[in-house]
Amino acid sequence: MEKIVIGNETEFSKTFSLDNVLDFSRISEDNNPIHIDEKYASESIFGKQVVHGVLLVSMFSKIFGTIYPGNGAIYLSQTSKFLKPAFIGDIIIAKAKLISFDNDKSQGLFLTECYKESENLIFTGEAKILFPKTFTL
Amino acid sequence: MEKIVIGNETEFSKTFSLDNVLDFSRISEDNNPIHIDEKYASESIFGKQVVHGVLLVSMFSKIFGTIYPGNGAIYLSQTSKFLKPAFIGDIIIAKAKLISFDNDKSQGLFLTECYKESENLIFTGEAKILFPKTFTL
Repeated sequence: MEKIVIGNETEFSKTFSLDNVLDFSRISEDNNPIHIDEKYASESIFGKQVVHGVLLVSMFSKIFGTIYPGNGAIYLSQTSKFLKPAFIGDIIIAKAKLISFDNDKSQGLFLTECYKESENLIFTGEAKILFPKTFTL
Repeated sequence: MEKIVIGNETEFSKTFSLDNVLDFSRISEDNNPIHIDEKYASESIFGKQVVHGVLLVSMFSKIFGTIYPGNGAIYLSQTSKFLKPAFIGDIIIAKAKLISFDNDKSQGLFLTECYKESENLIFTGEAKILFPKTFTL
């Protein structure tokens, strides 16, 4: 058994490349020019190509599915507030902090946040994760 | 100006391929075996390779960014409940229904749902979208 520690925080950093954004545009079919057209984006209110908000959410899919709790975890829900844009090349830090755990249901509630270059909050939300039965309070 | 119609529903259908899932695993670095390992998935409670939940959310990124309202739309927030798994090859129908619109803020609230083969609800949530100024009640 692995002991659950409330307050446990898992961090994952990532910089989305132009290729990541173009590949994701192709998979999702979200080819809005704010993401894929350099000239259009440069003339928009953002001034630069914006990383799809869904790619910020994917950082938590990565954390829950492969770091903590990892194998056997099931994603139940996620709330997402896209507070500020992430741009191609930005260093993004995703943090998932375990807020509470329901031992009977094996469900953990996480605060999920993304920061740009460590200081600037750009994404916030909460995630509910079904833990593998090997975890307990 | 384009007139806002409360209750307006936009639909987008999609079948995620094995390549889509493998490509997304690479971009997101979420290479949990439930997504990418056929043998592991076949022995899991799901019995088959599961499409990343985030890819369901991406269907709404596609709708809002390219269909309705399309160019100039800004994704403010999304809530996501992953009710049932989507498998590779499933026909998924995403529906975004405009529930309300704040004319002063140009913000629309949508009910966002995914169905499998038109009947089976697998995803539900709500999205808040900042509309381009060309839309009005």
